[in-house]
Amino acid sequence: MGACGSLKIRVEEMKIAVVQFNPRIGHLKSNVEKIKGFIGRAKEDGADLIVFPELAVTGYHPRDLLFYNAFLDGVEKAVTEDIVPLAEGIVVVVGTPWREKEGDLPRLYNAALVLKDKKIISSHYKILLSGDDVFDEHRYFKPGAKTSLLTLGGKKIAVTIGDDLQLEEHFRQGPGMVINLAASPYHLGRAGERAEMFRSLAMEKEVCLFYVNQVGGNDELIFDGSCVACSESAKVFHQVEPFRETLLYCKVDNFDLEIIGVEEDFPSLRTRNYLQEEDVNWVYAALQRGLADYLKKTGFDKVIIGMSGGIDSAVIAALAVEILGPDKVLSVMMPSRYSTDHSISDSEKLAANLQMENRLIPIEGPFKEFIESLNRGRKAIIDLAEENLQARIRGDILMFISNRESGMVLTTGNKSELAVGYCTLYGDMCGGLAVLADVPKQMVYRLAAYINDLAGKELIPQSIITKPPSAELRPDQFDHDSLPPYEVLDRLVHYYIEKNMHVDEIVAMGFEREQVENIVAKIDRSEYKRFQAAPVLRITSKAFGSGRRIPLARGNFW
Amino acid sequence: MGACGSLKIRVEEMKIAVVQFNPRIGHLKSNVEKIKGFIGRAKEDGADLIVFPELAVTGYHPRDLLFYNAFLDGVEKAVTEDIVPLAEGIVVVVGTPWREKEGDLPRLYNAALVLKDKKIISSHYKILLSGDDVFDEHRYFKPGAKTSLLTLGGKKIAVTIGDDLQLEEHFRQGPGMVINLAASPYHLGRAGERAEMFRSLAMEKEVCLFYVNQVGGNDELIFDGSCVACSESAKVFHQVEPFRETLLYCKVDNFDLEIIGVEEDFPSLRTRNYLQEEDVNWVYAALQRGLADYLKKTGFDKVIIGMSGGIDSAVIAALAVEILGPDKVLSVMMPSRYSTDHSISDSEKLAANLQMENRLIPIEGPFKEFIESLNRGRKAIIDLAEENLQARIRGDILMFISNRESGMVLTTGNKSELAVGYCTLYGDMCGGLAVLADVPKQMVYRLAAYINDLAGKELIPQSIITKPPSAELRPDQFDHDSLPPYEVLDRLVHYYIEKNMHVDEIVAMGFEREQVENIVAKIDRSEYKRFQAAPVLRITSKAFGSGRRIPLARGNFW
Repeated sequence: MGACGSLKIRVEEMKIAVVQFNPRIGHLKSNVEKIKGFIGRAKEDGADLIVFPELAVTGYHPRDLLFYNAFLDGVEKAVTEDIVPLAEGIVVVVGTPWREKEGDLPRLYNAALVLKDKKIISSHYKILLSGDDVFDEHRYFKPGAKTSLLTLGGKKIAVTIGDDLQLEEHFRQGPGMVINLAASPYHLGRAGERAEMFRSLAMEKEVCLFYVNQVGGNDELIFDGSCVACSESAKVFHQVEPFRETLLYCKVDNFDLEIIGVEEDFPSLRTRNYLQEEDVNWVYAALQRGLADYLKKTGFDKVIIGMSGGIDSAVIAALAVEILGPDKVLSVMMPSRYSTDHSISDSEKLAANLQMENRLIPIEGPFKEFIESLNRGRKAIIDLAEENLQARIRGDILMFISNRESGMVLTTGNKSELAVGYCTLYGDMCGGLAVLADVPKQMVYRLAAYINDLAGKELIPQSIITKPPSAELRPDQFDHDSLPPYEVLDRLVHYYIEKNMHVDEIVAMGFEREQVENIVAKIDRSEYKRFQAAPVLRITSKAFGSGRRIPLARGNFW
Repeated sequence: MGACGSLKIRVEEMKIAVVQFNPRIGHLKSNVEKIKGFIGRAKEDGADLIVFPELAVTGYHPRDLLFYNAFLDGVEKAVTEDIVPLAEGIVVVVGTPWREKEGDLPRLYNAALVLKDKKIISSHYKILLSGDDVFDEHRYFKPGAKTSLLTLGGKKIAVTIGDDLQLEEHFRQGPGMVINLAASPYHLGRAGERAEMFRSLAMEKEVCLFYVNQVGGNDELIFDGSCVACSESAKVFHQVEPFRETLLYCKVDNFDLEIIGVEEDFPSLRTRNYLQEEDVNWVYAALQRGLADYLKKTGFDKVIIGMSGGIDSAVIAALAVEILGPDKVLSVMMPSRYSTDHSISDSEKLAANLQMENRLIPIEGPFKEFIESLNRGRKAIIDLAEENLQARIRGDILMFISNRESGMVLTTGNKSELAVGYCTLYGDMCGGLAVLADVPKQMVYRLAAYINDLAGKELIPQSIITKPPSAELRPDQFDHDSLPPYEVLDRLVHYYIEKNMHVDEIVAMGFEREQVENIVAKIDRSEYKRFQAAPVLRITSKAFGSGRRIPLARGNFW
């Protein structure tokens, strides 16, 4: 992220508007309205060219909506009737799915359309379709066949989408400028990787480069935006503030970057200057954006959180209160006969700090009734069935409140727990969004510390941060009795899930074989739980969810 | 399915063994053991050539296991050390993922390897990767670059995988025989479609054709096998009995098809002669195979079914009893204050007919406790929250029994209900497998009738079949109060889900606009429930699950 400075760009006398755009998937009407708004504003401000990200018209990614002809008809209509007519006195580059008839067969492309004088003057089709991790572009699109240059005011501009930026062919005809439309989701470290890549490309190819990435949360994916304007030889490099819808102007010659923030629906998500270094601060901002957008885009303005007195629910409550305000966050304490006193007192402290409602609903009544019936008159015997039952009673209560009071239950489990199956299906896994389920436990601790730092006070009580984690489903139960220390567990999960390393390779890194085998077996055994998990906000390079597809009925190969 | 007769095949003096193979995903050890067994047997029986299906070594589809180098190392080892040495006195064609170094980069192919004289004599890489519906082959494989012929005993044989069979190039060099390795999952009508296609291809190209398809259930997919031996001009056409692991010999010249059934792990799944016409009989056989294999491959030999007295749970119980025997099926009746008397008496009749245990666990106790606490002392008010609570208490009970007695809970919802969200998340949606969730309600009725036909008696009591469906979550509740008649609903679901038709198109078929809009809105609104559903056995061309990917946080485009 460079300072706003003077940018020397070969493409002279052109004012370019880059839109870090936050679309709503499938909602053509609102996306078109917003696109219209940005074009109107850019025209007023004298921009010559405005660029929207990949698939801006539909949002990235509409997935199987693309199998509905009615949807594709709607897209075509939106583009030709609503957007094309606005291209007057300004050139518009916009990403959209685009059908083209080839013979009798309509083919669908991931396209960048260039609009000028109320016409589509050229179309660029994505060649290198994305197909790894969460991506399925081959499912929908035909790959484009060839690169093509846009000539604008006598200047050669390469219009590229996603990874096509890497294609040598674009540079053969010597463009002075490259525009890259993208929908590249965030994970920790990703913005830095991209910046590195743009810098070397600009220098190697001697082009100035505009990276126009989608921003906002869409289900599990959180797009950071982090749009880039980079001069040739990368002497000037500006990366737009991530996670916010933003309009950036780059003016030619004695160029000043002009950055125009756009109003947010959650004004509490303030612009912050502390995103310089990509670390826990980015994870925090990503989770905020992901949670805020999932709520907004699914139509919820209230959340319900089962409050255990532990760190995971505390961090989620703090995130939710910052987004929605304390009136819209309901904390529910549901102690059982095995709960400790501090689980209540810590929850109360937290609720007081966050000023949220904190409801107390003990589970002893229903638990006793269940046990009497299911144990046929005998007392509790404290086995796995009874442990899970407590978690499920809590799930019932949260879902009851959700149904009656119309709030979304947020699932509180972290990645370390979900990996090894240290969670109850239909119990603490109940909820509409798994906010922390791609956040390893140690990062949860760092988030808690960061939240307190930001607040400048102990928003999350220190006692919550320092006590040993426990599920409190039987007397004196602690995580460390069933699991290795989180320093170890988080690394094992990282190697196995994110790095696709297997037992021998992990053992070779210096871990005990028995421990590695035990954890890998636990991870393998709990695939069935994750299959039924809520959508997981993704902040690492490999989250549970659509980016990781493991068969359930299978045998171990090792 | 032709009778076993004499097949005139151009490739003379060759005895070919076709293996309708049921692998276990990822379990290299057991797959290799079985492959060894088949090769050994075929050698003993004097076969010249033995063919296994697509990805037989790993099972189709190993999905992200393919991202583990350790897994690919295991595959390579299994092939080179265990399978290749068996190719002595017999030629083996086997489907497997296969790495090839290109420069420094290892590329992965979906390969058919031809093994002879203890060597790999040729490899054929799939060109047209499958990428629609449930398929993601682009995620893992590089497409093959060219077709190639195998020459065996002076005869030209085209070895093809999946859709490559359709490639013109294969036929340019005039092969007399085509082998097609496949992993083509079943849906109603699919076997007939394929047979049609093979017949016309054989006639058009004047080749004899061997279709070698995987059999067995793997998670949501049920492979029918339905291997085919087809003479040139399709005068002789034999389709192997579906849904059973089978070895088929085709002997040359005065050729007799010799069909060797292979022992099943569930001996109760008898060979039947009534699969001639592809209708409810195939659906029944598919569900049996899917359920049996999911249980076997996840290691369960016992199931637990919440018994409502309705038709869905009755059909599932009958299926389960046929597979596992009555001792391994536990029916649990969980009446509430709103349950009717006949829900108990019908369940009891069914349990008696099927000879399964039928446990009675009323939910009034816990329900009352919940209500007292959640309604703060007031009585039940019968709203959605309370309706769902009853379903969730039942889910808790079933999962408790599952945890304590180690059986898998089977989810009983059908496709019509799941489509419109007429089900409770974490309630009746609890379970390890959604057996009927791709079966429209009307087909459930047909299955019930078929089960009684098969048994030659009223296994499922007539009263269960004839009473109006009800969730019984409030007094006098019937499905037909909230939903259109199932004749209508099933068609709407079919058009919207399976045919990707939208409101206007469906209305044009003669439905009322208001009704269509209402149902489409209901389907759209309940995506979030399906996101957390158990795996759904697929028996139509479009099931809920990995074949249908709809964003959750989105806006309506219509």
